[in-house]
Amino acid sequence: MGNSYGSLFRITTFGESHGRAIGVIIDGCPAGLAIDEAFIQRELDRRKPGQSKITTQRKEADAAQILSGVFEGKSTGMPIALMIENEDQRSKDYNHLEHAFRPSHADYTYQAKYGLRDHRGGGRSSARETAARVAAGAIAKLFLQQMGVTVQAYVSQVGDLKAPPYPELDLSQTENNIVRCPDPATAQQMIALIDQVRLERDTIGGSVTCVVRHAPVGLGEPVFDKLHAELGKAMLSINAVKGFEYGSGFAGIALRGSQHNDEFYTEGGQIKTKTNHSGGIQGGISNGEDIYFTVAFKPVATIMQDQSSVDKDGNEVTVSGKGRHDPCVVPRAVPIVEAMAALVLADFVLRARGARVW
Amino acid sequence: MGNSYGSLFRITTFGESHGRAIGVIIDGCPAGLAIDEAFIQRELDRRKPGQSKITTQRKEADAAQILSGVFEGKSTGMPIALMIENEDQRSKDYNHLEHAFRPSHADYTYQAKYGLRDHRGGGRSSARETAARVAAGAIAKLFLQQMGVTVQAYVSQVGDLKAPPYPELDLSQTENNIVRCPDPATAQQMIALIDQVRLERDTIGGSVTCVVRHAPVGLGEPVFDKLHAELGKAMLSINAVKGFEYGSGFAGIALRGSQHNDEFYTEGGQIKTKTNHSGGIQGGISNGEDIYFTVAFKPVATIMQDQSSVDKDGNEVTVSGKGRHDPCVVPRAVPIVEAMAALVLADFVLRARGARVW
Amino acid sequence: MGNSYGSLFRITTFGESHGRAIGVIIDGCPAGLAIDEAFIQRELDRRKPGQSKITTQRKEADAAQILSGVFEGKSTGMPIALMIENEDQRSKDYNHLEHAFRPSHADYTYQAKYGLRDHRGGGRSSARETAARVAAGAIAKLFLQQMGVTVQAYVSQVGDLKAPPYPELDLSQTENNIVRCPDPATAQQMIALIDQVRLERDTIGGSVTCVVRHAPVGLGEPVFDKLHAELGKAMLSINAVKGFEYGSGFAGIALRGSQHNDEFYTEGGQIKTKTNHSGGIQGGISNGEDIYFTVAFKPVATIMQDQSSVDKDGNEVTVSGKGRHDPCVVPRAVPIVEAMAALVLADFVLRARGARVW
Amino acid sequence: MGNSYGSLFRITTFGESHGRAIGVIIDGCPAGLAIDEAFIQRELDRRKPGQSKITTQRKEADAAQILSGVFEGKSTGMPIALMIENEDQRSKDYNHLEHAFRPSHADYTYQAKYGLRDHRGGGRSSARETAARVAAGAIAKLFLQQMGVTVQAYVSQVGDLKAPPYPELDLSQTENNIVRCPDPATAQQMIALIDQVRLERDTIGGSVTCVVRHAPVGLGEPVFDKLHAELGKAMLSINAVKGFEYGSGFAGIALRGSQHNDEFYTEGGQIKTKTNHSGGIQGGISNGEDIYFTVAFKPVATIMQDQSSVDKDGNEVTVSGKGRHDPCVVPRAVPIVEAMAALVLADFVLRARGARVW
Repeated sequence: MGNSYGSLFRITTFGESHGRAIGVIIDGCPAGLAIDEAFIQRELDRRKPGQSKITTQRKEADAAQILSGVFEGKSTGMPIALMIENEDQRSKDYNHLEHAFRPSHADYTYQAKYGLRDHRGGGRSSARETAARVAAGAIAKLFLQQMGVTVQAYVSQVGDLKAPPYPELDLSQTENNIVRCPDPATAQQMIALIDQVRLERDTIGGSVTCVVRHAPVGLGEPVFDKLHAELGKAMLSINAVKGFEYGSGFAGIALRGSQHNDEFYTEGGQIKTKTNHSGGIQGGISNGEDIYFTVAFKPVATIMQDQSSVDKDGNEVTVSGKGRHDPCVVPRAVPIVEAMAALVLADFVLRARGARVW
Repeated sequence: MGNSYGSLFRITTFGESHGRAIGVIIDGCPAGLAIDEAFIQRELDRRKPGQSKITTQRKEADAAQILSGVFEGKSTGMPIALMIENEDQRSKDYNHLEHAFRPSHADYTYQAKYGLRDHRGGGRSSARETAARVAAGAIAKLFLQQMGVTVQAYVSQVGDLKAPPYPELDLSQTENNIVRCPDPATAQQMIALIDQVRLERDTIGGSVTCVVRHAPVGLGEPVFDKLHAELGKAMLSINAVKGFEYGSGFAGIALRGSQHNDEFYTEGGQIKTKTNHSGGIQGGISNGEDIYFTVAFKPVATIMQDQSSVDKDGNEVTVSGKGRHDPCVVPRAVPIVEAMAALVLADFVLRARGARVW
Repeated sequence: MGNSYGSLFRITTFGESHGRAIGVIIDGCPAGLAIDEAFIQRELDRRKPGQSKITTQRKEADAAQILSGVFEGKSTGMPIALMIENEDQRSKDYNHLEHAFRPSHADYTYQAKYGLRDHRGGGRSSARETAARVAAGAIAKLFLQQMGVTVQAYVSQVGDLKAPPYPELDLSQTENNIVRCPDPATAQQMIALIDQVRLERDTIGGSVTCVVRHAPVGLGEPVFDKLHAELGKAMLSINAVKGFEYGSGFAGIALRGSQHNDEFYTEGGQIKTKTNHSGGIQGGISNGEDIYFTVAFKPVATIMQDQSSVDKDGNEVTVSGKGRHDPCVVPRAVPIVEAMAALVLADFVLRARGARVW
Repeated sequence: MGNSYGSLFRITTFGESHGRAIGVIIDGCPAGLAIDEAFIQRELDRRKPGQSKITTQRKEADAAQILSGVFEGKSTGMPIALMIENEDQRSKDYNHLEHAFRPSHADYTYQAKYGLRDHRGGGRSSARETAARVAAGAIAKLFLQQMGVTVQAYVSQVGDLKAPPYPELDLSQTENNIVRCPDPATAQQMIALIDQVRLERDTIGGSVTCVVRHAPVGLGEPVFDKLHAELGKAMLSINAVKGFEYGSGFAGIALRGSQHNDEFYTEGGQIKTKTNHSGGIQGGISNGEDIYFTVAFKPVATIMQDQSSVDKDGNEVTVSGKGRHDPCVVPRAVPIVEAMAALVLADFVLRARGARVW
C-alpha cells in the first residue's frame, strides 16, 4: 500500500529500478484536456539521467508511452496509463549488494519489513520511480495551464551556497544552466562545488524552492487536508527529502506577530496582502498571492568511498559505491518538485468544485 | 471534506470554536484496549487554555465525554465518539469582526471559498479544534504504550532562544515548567521572553521537537505514504505550523554524504546505526532508532494592536485584537504535536500488519 | 473500520443501541444549503419505533441535535455533527443474553471477531444505528431537493403479498397507511398479515422499492463505482437486507435482448428511452429516466419463541425473545432506504462535478 | 475516478477495448506470496473470447505480462502491475457507430457525462476491462489458497433454465462443459438454448452463483462495509449485472423468522449453524459456514437485429449489430465473478488483521 497519491486527481505508480518497466495510472483527469505528448517528454527529459556533467552518467531515454485514457489527442475521463520501459540497467553493478545494507538507503528497512527485497538498483526505493511522477505531473501541469496557473521550481541552495530570495530572481532563467539556479552567479558557484564534490567521490545536499503563481483563491480543505499540509506530504514523499517549509517557514519562529502578519488591502477590486509571509496560504486555503515553499534534500547516500556496514545476517561488511550516481540530487529534483506540486494543486482544484451548493 | 486523518486508525473531527460542541470519531481503534479516561483528561489538561500566565486566560474545562465504542472500560472495535462541550464562549468579543478579515487568519479564505462563515472565534479554523485531536491522540498513545512506544515532545525554540539538541536533554523534565522546555535554564529565558512579548501586546513564534522511542522497525509505506511524509502532513495540519524537518533536516543540506550517512553495526544481535541523521527513518520506513522531528510555529496572528485590513466588501478597516489570546502557541502545542504523532504511528502499526503473507 | 460511507458527501456514524448516544458526522455537505431541522425530525419520526401497532412498541423521541457545521440556518461547508441521545433503554431485557448467541443475529460473529462485545440491545449491530443514517440522509435530501431530484420508497412486498409495479402506483399515497404501501388494497392485506404474524409471536420478510425521479444525466463513475453498484452496497449495508436488484433485475434473466433493450428516441430535444428495463442507469451512469430498484429484507431475527442456540463457551442454551421488537421491518425501513439512496446520489452529484475540464 | 476497488488489497484497472493495452495495478498484495504465472494465464483463458461455439468468435490471446512487484517468483509487497496488450481489434466494425447510441449500452451516458468518448468497441465501458480483473483476481486467489479458502462459481440459470440448488451440485464438474453449469443435464439444455438464441440473432440473460468455502470467521467490517455489501458492490460493478442476493436472498421475503433463523450448535468444539439461510454472513461478518450468493445478468445488449435509436445530435438512426458478440454472457462471467469475490475476500482478510489489539 502507499503507492497512490491524491483524492480526485489521483495517481498510482508502479515499477522498480531494474524491472521491466515503471509507470503510472492517473485516475480522475477530467475529460477534454488536450494531452501534449511532446510536453510530457520534455518534462521527463528535465529529470532524466545523463543530461549534464553534474548528474549521473547513466543513459536512459525515459520514453513515455500512453496506454489508455487518451482518444484523438484528448483525455476521455478514463484512467490514463503511462509506461516507461527500463533500458540501461546494469544489474550486475548491484550483485555485490545482494545481501549488504547500504548506509542511509532503504535496504535494511525493506528487508526487515517485507522479509525479501529486489536489491537491484534499489528496486522500488530507487528514485527512478519519480520518472512516473514527472510524467503524471506533466498532465497535471497541462490541466493547470489552461487555468493560467504556473508552477516553477529552481535550485535555491547547494551546500552552503544560497540563491537570493525568489522575489529577486527571474525564474525564466532557471533552465539556462545545468544546476537550474536562476541566479547566474550563484549557479556557477554551485556547479563548481558539485563538480569538486564529485571529484572527491562524495555527495552534497541542497534545496529546491517552488513558486506557484495565479492559483485561484480557495484551494485547500480544512482541517487536515490543508493546502500546505498536502504540499508538505507530497514533497516529503520524494526520495532524499528531509524538510519542508512554506512562506516564512522556520525563519518565522524568530518573528513577532506584528512583523509577520500580512495586512489586507484592496487593489483593482481584488483583496490582496501587503506582505506574503503566509506563502499564499491562510488557514490551509490559497488566498491568491504567490504560493512558495522550500524543500530540503540530504546528500545522496551512495558515495564512491568505502563505508562500514552489515549484511542481512548481521555480519560486518564494507560497502563501496559502484555504478553511476548523482553527486547532488537537486538539479534533477526540480522537475520532480514541480510535478508533485502540480498534482497537489490539480487535486485541490477538483476538490474545490464541491465547496458550495451552487 | 478534509476533516478525517489516517487510513486504518482514522479520526474525523467536528465542531467550531463557539458552537455547541467539538469532538471526534475514532474509527479503527482495535478491540480490547483499556481506555483510561483519566489519562485522556490529563492530556486535554495539558492543552487547555488558562493553565499558566503565558497562555490565554480563557477558561474551559474541556471535559471529554465518551459517547460510544467503549464497554466495561475497553474498546470494542466500534467507532469511539468523544465530545467536548463548549463553555466559556464570549462570542460578543467577535461581533466587531463579523465582516472584517483579521490579518493572517483564515477569515478571508473561508469567506472566499464557502461564501459564508461562522465568524465567532474563528469558527472551524480556530485552534480549539485541536482539543479533539488531543483526545483522539490520547487513545492512540494508549495503544502505543502497550507496545512500549513512547512519544515525547517539548519546546525547542521560542524566538531566538534554542534548547540544546535532544540527546543532551532529559525529556522527563519537560512538564516541570510552564513553557515545556526540558532545559531549565532555557525554559526560564523563554518564559521571560514570552512574558515580555505579551506585555508589548505582541506575539512570537517557536518550535516543538518530538522524539519517538522504541517504535518497531517497519512502520511506513512506500512510496507516497512514507512515515516522515505522513508525520509532516500531520504536523503541517496543526494551526500556525510553517515548517517540518526530521533527522538532519534543513541542516543536512550543507553536509557531505560521507558525513551524513549512518553506518550500520550489530549490537546484541540487533542491527543499529552509529549515527542517526536519518531520524530513525530510511526509505520512508522506521529502522528502530529514535524518530525525531521539529515543527516550526509562526507567531500567533491575533495581536493586541491596531492593524490595517479590509472587510468582505473590500472597505478599509482597522482591526484591533480583543478577547483572550496566547502570546506564543508552543507551550500548548506540545500535547498537540504528540497527539498527531501518536495517531500517525498507530495508523502505521495497523498498516504494517498487512506487509507479509504470514 | 467500515463506519463511513461516501467519498465526497461522506458520513461516519457512531453509537450503540444502549450506549449514551448515537450520531453521525457529515463531511462534504456543500456550503450554503438551508438546513431545515424540522424536516430532519420528520424523517426521523418516520423511522422511529412505536409509531403504529405493527412496529415495535419501544418509545424513543429520537430527537436530533445539531452540534456543528450549521450557522444561521445554513451549512457552512464544515462537518455537520448530529447526535441522538438514547433514552428508553431496557438493558436488563438483554441480561439473559450476555453470553448467549441469538440465532441469525450478529452476536456470534462480533464476539468471534473482536473477542468482546457490547451485548446490550445488539450494541453496534442494532438497527438503531440507522437513525443516524436517516438524519444524514435528510440533509442529502435537502441537497437533492434544491436540484429537483426526488427520492421515494415504499413497501412493495410483505411475505407473498406484492404491490403492483411502480408505474401503476401513486407514490404520494405511501404515507397514508401504516405499512407504507401506496396501493390501499394491498396495504390493508399487508397490515393484516403482519398483525397475524405478530400474534403468532413470529416475524416475516418484505421488500422496499425506491424510485428516484429527475436525477440529472451523468451520475455514476465507471468502472467500479457504478451508480447501481453503490446503490447496491448502500442498501446491502442496511440491517436485514438480503438482496438488491435494479431495473429489470432478476426478472431480466429470462428475457431476450430484443425484449430487454431500451430503444432511444428524442422528445422535446431531449434523448429518452421508450422502455426502462435499464432502471435509469446505463454503463453505471444515470441516463435521465426514473432510477428504480428493490431491496429484499429477511424476517426479523428476534422472535418471541424458544430457539436452540449456544453460549460463547459452546454450551447449548435456549434463547427466548424478550423486549419489544418489530414483527416486520419494512414499514420502518422505507425512510432508511430513501436516506441511503439520497446519500449515494448526493455523493455522485458532487463527484460528477469533476468529469470535465470546463 | 472510480477505477479502483478494495482498500488494503486494492486494484486499479486501466484500458479501453481497442486501445493499446489494458491492465491493472494491485497495491497491497502482501510480500512473500508465490506468484504462479501459469495459473494467472489459466484464469484468463477461462474468460477469453473464442473459447467455444457459444461465446463470441473474437480471438485474443489475452497474455498477461507482469511489469513489476514480483522478484524471483514472489511478491515483494510492491505494486504488481499486469498488462494485456490488445490484439484482434476490428475497430472498423464500429465506424458506423461513431455517432450513434446503441440501445442499452453506455454510449449515450458516456457522451453526455464526458462530452466525448472512445466509441471503438465500447471503449472503457467494454467488458474487455474485466480481463484485468480476472488477472488481479487470480493473485487474490493465490493469496486465499494458501489459507485454504476456495472460491467457485458456476452458471445457475440461463433464461428459464435453472440448475438445482448448490448443495445438490458437485462443483468440481463446472469446467466440464462449455456453459459452466455443474449439472450435466441442465448444462446440455442451456447450451442448446444459447445456440438457438444465437441463431435467432438474439441474446439471453442468465445467472451465476458463487460459493466460498473455508473462509475464516470474522471477515467483514460493520456497519457499511459488511461482507455481503462489498460482495454486492463488486458483483454489481461487473458489466450487465442487474441483481445480487446472498443466502436466502429474495426468497427470504416470504419466510417467517421461525423458518429462516439459523440455530447454532457445537460440533467438534466449533460453533456451527444447523441451516444456512444467512449465507455464511451474520451482521455483515463471515461466520465460518459456506458463503454463497447469486448474480443476475441481463441479456447482452448487442443483438444482430435492427434497432431504432438516435445519434448524438438526436437524429433518428437504425443500429444493426456487427462484429462478434456473445449470445449469453454467463459462461465467460464465471471467472469474473470468482475474481471479484476473491478480491473482496482478500481485502477483508487484510482488514481483519486490525480487529484486535493483540
